Amino acid sequence: MKNYEEKTLSSETIYEGKIISLRVEDVELPDGNHAKRELVKHPGAVAILPITADGKLVLVEQYRKALDRTLVEIPAGKIDHGEEPKITAIRELEEETGYGAKEFTYIQSFATSPGFADEIIHLYLARELYEIEEPALGDEDEFIGLLEVTIEEAEAMVKNEQIFDAKTAFAIIYAKNLLQK
Amino acid sequence: MKNYEEKTLSSETIYEGKIISLRVEDVELPDGNHAKRELVKHPGAVAILPITADGKLVLVEQYRKALDRTLVEIPAGKIDHGEEPKITAIRELEEETGYGAKEFTYIQSFATSPGFADEIIHLYLARELYEIEEPALGDEDEFIGLLEVTIEEAEAMVKNEQIFDAKTAFAIIYAKNLLQK
Repeated sequence: MKNYEEKTLSSETIYEGKIISLRVEDVELPDGNHAKRELVKHPGAVAILPITADGKLVLVEQYRKALDRTLVEIPAGKIDHGEEPKITAIRELEEETGYGAKEFTYIQSFATSPGFADEIIHLYLARELYEIEEPALGDEDEFIGLLEVTIEEAEAMVKNEQIFDAKTAFAIIYAKNLLQK
Repeated sequence: MKNYEEKTLSSETIYEGKIISLRVEDVELPDGNHAKRELVKHPGAVAILPITADGKLVLVEQYRKALDRTLVEIPAGKIDHGEEPKITAIRELEEETGYGAKEFTYIQSFATSPGFADEIIHLYLARELYEIEEPALGDEDEFIGLLEVTIEEAEAMVKNEQIFDAKTAFAIIYAKNLLQK
């Protein structure tokens, strides 16, 4: 790969919050000119694609203030400081769905908004699900509904934009390819 | 769907920048308790899945300051104020790759980081590509390399995390299913 790196000339922290922080940097471009970069720092997150024994996907329904609408997504959550992503994923699956999984495997990681944020999502596949008798409770500021849908139903929800989220769209098409094998 | 809406009690604008802005809101949760939401506002973006006549994907290589690394992605760019997303997509394809497309169709839209940002990406499929003789130049602060890869090469790049971006991972698996038909 070529090197298009941008050298930081100065960096100003605008905000340091509970979850994200914002800094603005002046950078030197490969041609020597300068530009401004607005950069959001995020602790990273996990997402889980849970598939039941009869091939259904477990999805969660959650109001998202940033978009001012309720979204249907695969279970997900941000990584606590220093936490191993797989541990976060097991915890979030339990808190958001009440399920544990006998088979828990890594799929892949990706950046969600590389143009302005460093958020990386680590995606896991959870199979051989079982109901946990007294599941741990999630964040007290999260209100979540549960859905179990077939692949065909999930695909229809993507088409009609009831599912409207990149990680979930990827997970559904991934699950389709997996279950067709 | 149930209503998990969060009512805004107060909103403070922390930063208004060239591309993004940041506000912090106090909200009332469905159970009457209060919580704080850190929200990034973004103008929205387009991404294009360009497939050549011989079934190759056209990808761009670009340094991303937020992640401090070079990423390989499908062509993408933010929507200028008031611009129709399809027009943005046609423009970005030309600026970033030098290609025009005789067939330009909408695939779908999705939120990229619904936990903290309102960014929505509108994804288009571009086929029957032709080289534009004197393509318009892109943003002067963008330095971009071009790659044309087979689906198998693209899949390998996802596996080894050279491709490390949610919209691109989705586009590649979408292209695979499309070309296998």
